[in-house]
Amino acid sequence: MSDLRPTPDDKFTFGLWTVGWQARDPFGDATRPPIDPVETVHRLADMGAYGVTFHDDDLIPFGSEDTARDEHIKRFRAALDETGLVVPMVTTNLFTHPIFKDGGFTSNDRAIRRYALRKVMRNIDLAAELGASTYVFWGGREGAETDAAKDVRAALDRYREGIDLLADYVVDRGYGLRFALEPKPNEPRGDILLPTVGHALAFIAQLEHREMVGVNPEVGHEQMAGLNFVHGISQALWAGKLFHIDLNGQHGPKFDQDLVFGHGDLLSAFFLVDLLENGGPGGGPAYDGPRHFDYKPMRTEDLDGVWASAAENMRTYLLLKQRAAAYRADPEVQQALITSKVPELSVPTLSDGETYSDLLADTSAYESLDVEAVAARGYAFGRLDQLAVEHVMGAR
Amino acid sequence: MSDLRPTPDDKFTFGLWTVGWQARDPFGDATRPPIDPVETVHRLADMGAYGVTFHDDDLIPFGSEDTARDEHIKRFRAALDETGLVVPMVTTNLFTHPIFKDGGFTSNDRAIRRYALRKVMRNIDLAAELGASTYVFWGGREGAETDAAKDVRAALDRYREGIDLLADYVVDRGYGLRFALEPKPNEPRGDILLPTVGHALAFIAQLEHREMVGVNPEVGHEQMAGLNFVHGISQALWAGKLFHIDLNGQHGPKFDQDLVFGHGDLLSAFFLVDLLENGGPGGGPAYDGPRHFDYKPMRTEDLDGVWASAAENMRTYLLLKQRAAAYRADPEVQQALITSKVPELSVPTLSDGETYSDLLADTSAYESLDVEAVAARGYAFGRLDQLAVEHVMGAR
Amino acid sequence: MSDLRPTPDDKFTFGLWTVGWQARDPFGDATRPPIDPVETVHRLADMGAYGVTFHDDDLIPFGSEDTARDEHIKRFRAALDETGLVVPMVTTNLFTHPIFKDGGFTSNDRAIRRYALRKVMRNIDLAAELGASTYVFWGGREGAETDAAKDVRAALDRYREGIDLLADYVVDRGYGLRFALEPKPNEPRGDILLPTVGHALAFIAQLEHREMVGVNPEVGHEQMAGLNFVHGISQALWAGKLFHIDLNGQHGPKFDQDLVFGHGDLLSAFFLVDLLENGGPGGGPAYDGPRHFDYKPMRTEDLDGVWASAAENMRTYLLLKQRAAAYRADPEVQQALITSKVPELSVPTLSDGETYSDLLADTSAYESLDVEAVAARGYAFGRLDQLAVEHVMGAR
Amino acid sequence: MSDLRPTPDDKFTFGLWTVGWQARDPFGDATRPPIDPVETVHRLADMGAYGVTFHDDDLIPFGSEDTARDEHIKRFRAALDETGLVVPMVTTNLFTHPIFKDGGFTSNDRAIRRYALRKVMRNIDLAAELGASTYVFWGGREGAETDAAKDVRAALDRYREGIDLLADYVVDRGYGLRFALEPKPNEPRGDILLPTVGHALAFIAQLEHREMVGVNPEVGHEQMAGLNFVHGISQALWAGKLFHIDLNGQHGPKFDQDLVFGHGDLLSAFFLVDLLENGGPGGGPAYDGPRHFDYKPMRTEDLDGVWASAAENMRTYLLLKQRAAAYRADPEVQQALITSKVPELSVPTLSDGETYSDLLADTSAYESLDVEAVAARGYAFGRLDQLAVEHVMGAR
Repeated sequence: MSDLRPTPDDKFTFGLWTVGWQARDPFGDATRPPIDPVETVHRLADMGAYGVTFHDDDLIPFGSEDTARDEHIKRFRAALDETGLVVPMVTTNLFTHPIFKDGGFTSNDRAIRRYALRKVMRNIDLAAELGASTYVFWGGREGAETDAAKDVRAALDRYREGIDLLADYVVDRGYGLRFALEPKPNEPRGDILLPTVGHALAFIAQLEHREMVGVNPEVGHEQMAGLNFVHGISQALWAGKLFHIDLNGQHGPKFDQDLVFGHGDLLSAFFLVDLLENGGPGGGPAYDGPRHFDYKPMRTEDLDGVWASAAENMRTYLLLKQRAAAYRADPEVQQALITSKVPELSVPTLSDGETYSDLLADTSAYESLDVEAVAARGYAFGRLDQLAVEHVMGAR
Repeated sequence: MSDLRPTPDDKFTFGLWTVGWQARDPFGDATRPPIDPVETVHRLADMGAYGVTFHDDDLIPFGSEDTARDEHIKRFRAALDETGLVVPMVTTNLFTHPIFKDGGFTSNDRAIRRYALRKVMRNIDLAAELGASTYVFWGGREGAETDAAKDVRAALDRYREGIDLLADYVVDRGYGLRFALEPKPNEPRGDILLPTVGHALAFIAQLEHREMVGVNPEVGHEQMAGLNFVHGISQALWAGKLFHIDLNGQHGPKFDQDLVFGHGDLLSAFFLVDLLENGGPGGGPAYDGPRHFDYKPMRTEDLDGVWASAAENMRTYLLLKQRAAAYRADPEVQQALITSKVPELSVPTLSDGETYSDLLADTSAYESLDVEAVAARGYAFGRLDQLAVEHVMGAR
Repeated sequence: MSDLRPTPDDKFTFGLWTVGWQARDPFGDATRPPIDPVETVHRLADMGAYGVTFHDDDLIPFGSEDTARDEHIKRFRAALDETGLVVPMVTTNLFTHPIFKDGGFTSNDRAIRRYALRKVMRNIDLAAELGASTYVFWGGREGAETDAAKDVRAALDRYREGIDLLADYVVDRGYGLRFALEPKPNEPRGDILLPTVGHALAFIAQLEHREMVGVNPEVGHEQMAGLNFVHGISQALWAGKLFHIDLNGQHGPKFDQDLVFGHGDLLSAFFLVDLLENGGPGGGPAYDGPRHFDYKPMRTEDLDGVWASAAENMRTYLLLKQRAAAYRADPEVQQALITSKVPELSVPTLSDGETYSDLLADTSAYESLDVEAVAARGYAFGRLDQLAVEHVMGAR
Repeated sequence: MSDLRPTPDDKFTFGLWTVGWQARDPFGDATRPPIDPVETVHRLADMGAYGVTFHDDDLIPFGSEDTARDEHIKRFRAALDETGLVVPMVTTNLFTHPIFKDGGFTSNDRAIRRYALRKVMRNIDLAAELGASTYVFWGGREGAETDAAKDVRAALDRYREGIDLLADYVVDRGYGLRFALEPKPNEPRGDILLPTVGHALAFIAQLEHREMVGVNPEVGHEQMAGLNFVHGISQALWAGKLFHIDLNGQHGPKFDQDLVFGHGDLLSAFFLVDLLENGGPGGGPAYDGPRHFDYKPMRTEDLDGVWASAAENMRTYLLLKQRAAAYRADPEVQQALITSKVPELSVPTLSDGETYSDLLADTSAYESLDVEAVAARGYAFGRLDQLAVEHVMGAR
């Protein structure tokens, strides 16, 4: 099917660190060689991707001299120019080097916090140069293993201080970047600050430049806490804060699996794609940013498997998009939604102009409501769920 | 030890539904008779509790006629007067009756949403009459089992509409009540809206009367999502939103156990009590509201066991409070905190008056920092954790 | 599609308690009326089911007089005769009545253990009379909330004593029944004995009549512990112990959801059906017993929704069976399995007649093996997973 | 307290890989230098440990030439001789090198399975030479990320083939070693074979030399599946299969934390120590093997922190042992156990010589039992739990 062939219009993007993961895990050595970022750019472009993203250290090894740094950037830019791939998002590595073992923005060690801010600012300059519109913050090391070790309120003060300062910097430089915070409940820290989409949104509400800060939720991260990812994305959209998204797969509460998108909870992936693609006004997209895959090719795969897995992410997304379109178009689904009163939830509870006094005066709302009769109505949600399952399975 | 005998100054409160739980569970019938709320008031007062809380239906059976309702309230008031017990918090039951099977504020059925608002308003009047200062909202039925069944953004619109309307009502009536939202990730619904402290705080930030709405986190609810409760409470305090708290015990992600406080994750309970009692300015309390136990006496217990369990909640809290005081007072702990740079996290990352330009100009922060040397420093967090464990165990 | 219409040959069975669940949950009252078992028999037969199963108390209310009991049985039998529905499995309710609040076989109270054995024996007689071939034991109340309350080794002694005695009874009476133990990790008890398929299999190995005792795993129960259900079923089959199976849906570690089959982890449901239907010798079935649905229609549904949900279980199973057949028949899948060396795992590690001494003498196995070259081979497991996902989605 | 100073009689042992962990994690580089195994031996001896354990590759880097290998062994032996430390357990690393990326015993690649067996045999020779009595098998790579990739029944055949062959080898050589299988549910594989104590025990029952194979359960591994570790150990003891034990700490279902013993679920650690130390006949030990710590010093710690953490494991164990002794000795606890009928569970359900026919004839057991009266009895389990909590806290 031709519409399963990705094109840049699909806005698929990948991190350099995804295909480039050498498959070193807590119990095993690397199983794959490094990949030159330039090769990644060409490969992704050949596959129909739209863009590529990176942490500073993915492109420029930590501690590189300036001339080496410039050379890395130059080669990368050339590949971008050659392929037309864009860099819509950039982020900082504040977790690999031992200096960040207690975090970057919230390390107990003030010298490290200052160092982290400098590292971010330097990479923000590069992000702006490369035309990125989003700068992601994954605070994977901002956390603790024991409650004794971290004054969480002080940590949140420092986190805010850091983000506020960087926002000032971006504003003053006129970079036009927006920030996106990426929540995760744990791993590598025992508990990570801002563990869920909710906590990140709540934190953002306390920021000076809250208008330019949103979230970058990752499928597996929410599912590691047993949370419903579609619900989380919905709340982020509701708050106007879905600035970026990380797509992958996970099998519930365990270590971070970073599977190919769809290779985890397939039904949730379907409802997610439906929300993103068809959940907007008039049934259009609810989100128009990059569909960013933040996954890891399995450690058992060789380089051929790596590139195959990259393509599988996109193909699965497009398949789900087809299924979601058919689901929405199905008259039985449309009727079932009405039967289940799903659209009725968009009708305000109070009528236009009605006040609580009016509601208090409306005896039909309470005094004379036939409670047992109303309670007896079935919602037929099972039917809806079955229709969705059958659409996912291509059985309708 | 005399200071293990609770007094009203300890501000211990219990819900009528806690000791009054008849131990009906998803696979079993009630094992205990109902308890007259008047008896509960007397028992709790005798034990040294400060107050009692209730859902409307705990005190006044659903569907009672007005005269019966008045009688229930009158008897209850008399017991309060007699004992001196107060009612600092009241809440609504929007989950037991079948009419709420798809929620109250966010039911797809608009008639039910209107009915729910009326039910709440009626009970808010009673709460105000009884002198309550906090009104809790646990939206246990606000959720779904399948993503097909609920338009989450519309649901959040309706949730906000409901809370905004009720806040208006409270303000207009001059009731002086504050609202506290109680998050829970799931059960009885497959997924509940506002699943964690974070999601609730984020929601509150979107409300019209956000200043009068905070959270009522429950130990077990956050732990059902594998989240660190002390971190959640810290973020709530940081946002100025810890309006109430539900204390109990839980063994990680599974059904809601509602064990006696401390009879789950004991170390977390210790750090929680330490935060509440000693985490405020100058080492005073960080929270001064009721210490509310929202637990269930185990289904294996008879009525003697019920009352014993109520006392155990308070005794365990007081024991942990003693341990936390000793922990804070221990010079080795104080030294260990400094060694681990815990207080240094309260020092802003930028000096007073320093700007990002100054930071950029400070070569000692980045260019000349001895990264490897700084990275090599150990934090000695293990020592702190061990000191805490030993204090919990009364071994120091 | 005609092959999506269930027939008795599909061996679909349902418990009376599934469609009959009145939707009482820990926080809510019943939302549906009881259903007469006779109606259930007729409805299931009309839908193409093969059989019906029950706990004693589902058919005969606890405490019924003998004459009432006989009448219940007589009406039920008549319905079976009329419809041709069979009763392949029967089980005992040792969990609803308060007397079992600390368990049946392993209650600390010996009188209760004796009572439980009598209750089971009585119902085993009925099971035999009705021609059942499997008797299930779900020990939902055999467990504890605190380690202080239960001597687990003594409990396992009593559990074994009970099962051994009942096996003797069945053997002596010539009933021809086999026993199937159903594991569950928790709920309603904090921790249940024999929490997983593995623990149950290990327990069975210690029984006197171990040859007549197997397991009855339930999808959701293993997934509540985050375990892979297909792996569990595989180990049960490997041990020759898959005597019965309970099909439903679940979203990971949380309360027991008992969703419709497939309405949880759809990919796992696909691999399960593939294993059951195509995992036997020559690609035939690996299991030939009833496909038993142990689910609960959602609490939001009315009786129409109840019957619809019953049909959805069967339809989803049959759809997955079609998808699995297509997956197996796909030449690309067959080639991919070979590429991934999946069949090579069935080749013994030692050659026919080879001993460890021969292996020690085989320098090609170790001394001269090109370890790095072997290590570099990719397994292409991602390709296999993607093929499965696409077959589930009907996209190939 | 002098009895908190460990001595070899306490039988505390540590893996070389525990203190020696360089703190490389999935998102970060090593934060600590390697430690010479000879230094570890001396340090552990100085602290009062009893023994040291290792994977082959911990002592002898993978791929070492024979002369280098001999030298490593010689230096290690000398340290053992000098310090008196023993080596009660040895194990094999079948997980770090990329060759094992799909497992050792159950790799789909037969050449790798043969290689793995050879690697184990070689190290078994060394284990025997060093006087070890237990050989552990942790099959961390025996598993899969997708059900498509692994024929689990074939995998179990190969697993059994491997263990059977190695058991033959050990028997024939007269090594006197026993095998202990270590279960883990996941990480590094998406799902690991033999995921829990139960699954491992069930597998052992299928082995040729089942009498010489037991389990080596690890605290955190069972808790990663939300299972009760004390229950798992009890079932292993009940089966006579607790051959070794790995002590550490974990905070529920998430990545494998390997915290210091007690620094996770403290109440469970208490009941575990009580079981091991006092759960045997006459209140003596239920287990007399090594108390083996398989933990990881946190990544934030330097080498001083590493050695401190080793000592903390032992100290916490000894503290809990004191608390457990006091708990057992407390007359209130003894009375409470009787009240809760805990000892009554050790009384067989049938009287001596009683048959099921006798039970059927005993109308007091069923027909005339006052079910409601028996059901109304409370078990007072809450009291027991509270007594335990207070003993853990040193408050009695």
